[in-house]
Amino acid sequence: MLCLRNKTVLHKIWTINLKPVSHVCSLQMVANYDEVMKLALERGFYFPSCEIYSDAPAGFWEYGPTGVNMKNKFVELWRRELVRRDGMMEIDGCQIMSKSVFVASGHISNFTDPIVKCTKCGSTFRADRYITEKTGENVPERMADEEINALIKKHNLRCPNCKGEFGGVSRFNMMFRVGIGPAAEEAYLRPETCQTIFVDFARVFKTMRGRLPLGIAQVGKSFRNEIAPRQSLLRLREFYQAEIEVFCNPNRLNEMPKFEEVKNTFLRISSHDGSAITEATAQEAIDKGLIPNKLVAYYLALLIEFYDKTGIDVKRSRFRRLSDEEKAFYASVAFDFEVETSIGWLELVACNYRSDYDLKGHGATSKQNLEVVDPADQTKVLPHVFELSMGIDRSIYTILEHCYYEDEQHDDRVVLKLKPYLAPILVGVLPLMTKDGLDEKARKIHSDLKYDFDTFYDESGSIGRRYRRLEEVGAPFAVTIDQTTMQDDTVTVRHRDTMQQERVKTSELRQYMQNALDAARN
Amino acid sequence: MLCLRNKTVLHKIWTINLKPVSHVCSLQMVANYDEVMKLALERGFYFPSCEIYSDAPAGFWEYGPTGVNMKNKFVELWRRELVRRDGMMEIDGCQIMSKSVFVASGHISNFTDPIVKCTKCGSTFRADRYITEKTGENVPERMADEEINALIKKHNLRCPNCKGEFGGVSRFNMMFRVGIGPAAEEAYLRPETCQTIFVDFARVFKTMRGRLPLGIAQVGKSFRNEIAPRQSLLRLREFYQAEIEVFCNPNRLNEMPKFEEVKNTFLRISSHDGSAITEATAQEAIDKGLIPNKLVAYYLALLIEFYDKTGIDVKRSRFRRLSDEEKAFYASVAFDFEVETSIGWLELVACNYRSDYDLKGHGATSKQNLEVVDPADQTKVLPHVFELSMGIDRSIYTILEHCYYEDEQHDDRVVLKLKPYLAPILVGVLPLMTKDGLDEKARKIHSDLKYDFDTFYDESGSIGRRYRRLEEVGAPFAVTIDQTTMQDDTVTVRHRDTMQQERVKTSELRQYMQNALDAARN
Repeated sequence: MLCLRNKTVLHKIWTINLKPVSHVCSLQMVANYDEVMKLALERGFYFPSCEIYSDAPAGFWEYGPTGVNMKNKFVELWRRELVRRDGMMEIDGCQIMSKSVFVASGHISNFTDPIVKCTKCGSTFRADRYITEKTGENVPERMADEEINALIKKHNLRCPNCKGEFGGVSRFNMMFRVGIGPAAEEAYLRPETCQTIFVDFARVFKTMRGRLPLGIAQVGKSFRNEIAPRQSLLRLREFYQAEIEVFCNPNRLNEMPKFEEVKNTFLRISSHDGSAITEATAQEAIDKGLIPNKLVAYYLALLIEFYDKTGIDVKRSRFRRLSDEEKAFYASVAFDFEVETSIGWLELVACNYRSDYDLKGHGATSKQNLEVVDPADQTKVLPHVFELSMGIDRSIYTILEHCYYEDEQHDDRVVLKLKPYLAPILVGVLPLMTKDGLDEKARKIHSDLKYDFDTFYDESGSIGRRYRRLEEVGAPFAVTIDQTTMQDDTVTVRHRDTMQQERVKTSELRQYMQNALDAARN
Repeated sequence: MLCLRNKTVLHKIWTINLKPVSHVCSLQMVANYDEVMKLALERGFYFPSCEIYSDAPAGFWEYGPTGVNMKNKFVELWRRELVRRDGMMEIDGCQIMSKSVFVASGHISNFTDPIVKCTKCGSTFRADRYITEKTGENVPERMADEEINALIKKHNLRCPNCKGEFGGVSRFNMMFRVGIGPAAEEAYLRPETCQTIFVDFARVFKTMRGRLPLGIAQVGKSFRNEIAPRQSLLRLREFYQAEIEVFCNPNRLNEMPKFEEVKNTFLRISSHDGSAITEATAQEAIDKGLIPNKLVAYYLALLIEFYDKTGIDVKRSRFRRLSDEEKAFYASVAFDFEVETSIGWLELVACNYRSDYDLKGHGATSKQNLEVVDPADQTKVLPHVFELSMGIDRSIYTILEHCYYEDEQHDDRVVLKLKPYLAPILVGVLPLMTKDGLDEKARKIHSDLKYDFDTFYDESGSIGRRYRRLEEVGAPFAVTIDQTTMQDDTVTVRHRDTMQQERVKTSELRQYMQNALDAARN
């Protein structure tokens, strides 16, 4: 069993109190980008921004009502399993930041994509991606412009629109610039949330009486002016990150008492080309030299335990150790946490050991001393940083794909097998008919549940169609109010995956739902 | 008793299960902007963005660890008491939106501030505010430029920096412009979250099978390029809104069965000059013509019931009906929900009846038909909109101010009397000493609580100082582990406001905290 907090406790089944299973369930996983997209559009998970306008720019997507609930619960789970578990501090900072921040961070000079412009029609393309698409040749993030020019020449690449020749490679900075006040002072939308954390580190550490290692976490929007955004939530110009920056003493990376909690957690680690995956416990990974130290291993283990709880199949994941050419410009050791999907391996989290790159840069540019005292060895130290930089939108997509099932034996019903604590709707409340007071009773029951849980009252259409709609948005439970309810004040609780039903007293419904949530979570 | 969901149930005291009060508590409310600011800065509620940099622009503030927790809980309460209670749909859309959106909304032409520039030194000022500051004359939002010029002439106002003469009034658009992609397509950071809701209305209504009236809600950032941001969270350039847009059939504004739930809720309504406040139930307010219809009255009542739960003293609030000159350019009837603070009446929520201004504009500009069918009267209708546009940051400030107390009888201790469900930390866990295994035991107890509640483990300093620190961030409970704990596995639970202590079994601590939260909330 992978990734359990306590290896002796196996995954608890959240559909507790079930009567014996009377028929075998026949859910088949269907991993398919187009199916997920269709569901997302039709059931309110996500859809393009400004879609009623023809000038709506690409790379901007919105969360609809089901998507918002699921995203919020995902973030809440992240808080629970990473922030609160580890005792991190969470902050929430501004998205517009002054120019100095990005001079210090290196983004003004380094955060660029190579572009080529057609000399004939003026169309602009992202050079590295165009080369890879046309030739299959890999163009690493740090390839020099001359090498890219050479590749274009070698393959005789031309403009796909007009066959014109390309001019030489130039650099396009991916940050969005804004002007502040009447004088339009230069500022930028942050391209990664972590810059806020670095800039705020000194105050947070001091006022919150921090001690190394200290994780500072943040959920928020970041912005990248991608030349070629694509695939809905997967490459956005405006996107959600959940970033954790662990500030640590580089001399004490193996002094981690907390590591004991996770030493037996399994990690799947691959080399940069992904050719072979080694499955090892956190302890073994250190012993074999796959992970450089206990601090890094500890946080990778927390991360995989978290993802295991999201419903993503972590047996189809890997920590891929990046090559020097692939790494971001600030990283000294880096793992990408990747998950296998229908469209290939998808990076969900960048795990970078950023050394003192960030605090050194901000300290020098701002002329502030950002050193702190580590009482453990009584030294002043400029903390190093290990980060878990998570893409929330991509994670949401991956959860949807891994939880998308069809049921061949039951009219190919679509079932989103979301964990109860991530389901946009926990319970649908359905009167069997809208007469004999059933609807009134159902509305009363709905009223009792709606403050504490995400609920949906639905009285229109056949009961079968109403069940289908709930299954498609992953609601684990449907409560049906029927004639028997009027006699003995019980309702049927129907379980999404097994379609089994049981009768529950109305007065116990709230506790039933709470128990199901608690049982699923622990 | 104001604003109770059910008038027969009085405010429950959340410090349940208390032993009889043995001494009278002596907390005094201290309403003072500077005290709140000091606390916010020192205890991690909020602080200036990019503060280590000298070029940090004004009007940008960050939430620190305590502030984030409180803000998240505030939003969660808003979801519970408004969104889930009413069955609204929540969405989460992009902040960058295409130019067309703001052509249609009127922001490109109307969302401007009058500015004057010194002809000598070039300094720029916001004209209306400068006039009011210097002369006390009120300059309404819609005053024409010529009238403003006339006022400047009349009072012979000059540049405060160099005494130079002002040029004529011009207009400064308060939206931040960004350029998308290599061609820098014109787009803007939204100045209000509601534009997302209007643009997404058609898809949400259709895919979620909406029925009028339908509330669509959103929490998110908005951006206004203020010329003179000031007073920390009160006038920001980047700020959080929680907006609710209720789409309704203008012919059925009095067909609101849900109104019965709130007809006895008290509202305090004033005329536009705030001279007299009438306190009346929602029903009476309609009967007296203070509120135009049941739909508006219903949502104003939900709003005041919500704010009552935040800990803001709603007896010091009013719905001020705006004059025609004050209203935003899109509003036909408007109330500002205002709360009295140490720096005057503060607008927390704009309650605007926007009629069909928005959908008409977006329909015309996008050439989409945004009408929907109302099954109740079988007509096609372009919905009207009533909105509750809430400023989250200002609300957070006001809660802090209204909950800031000092205790004269106990060394002037500062107590933040936050509701338990809004407190950044619910419970502090404190070993009396770090020996005899007390700290180990305390860490174990902390571990059991930390997943489900916001907790803080603190072992440094005297127990009295540790209590003080918890009181200052509003933690309702402190759990102390002492020698008795090691004998009988009980701890003391200390109550923030009364300083009373009671012994609770360790095994019952989790349930105790959950009960306290539940009791406070209901």
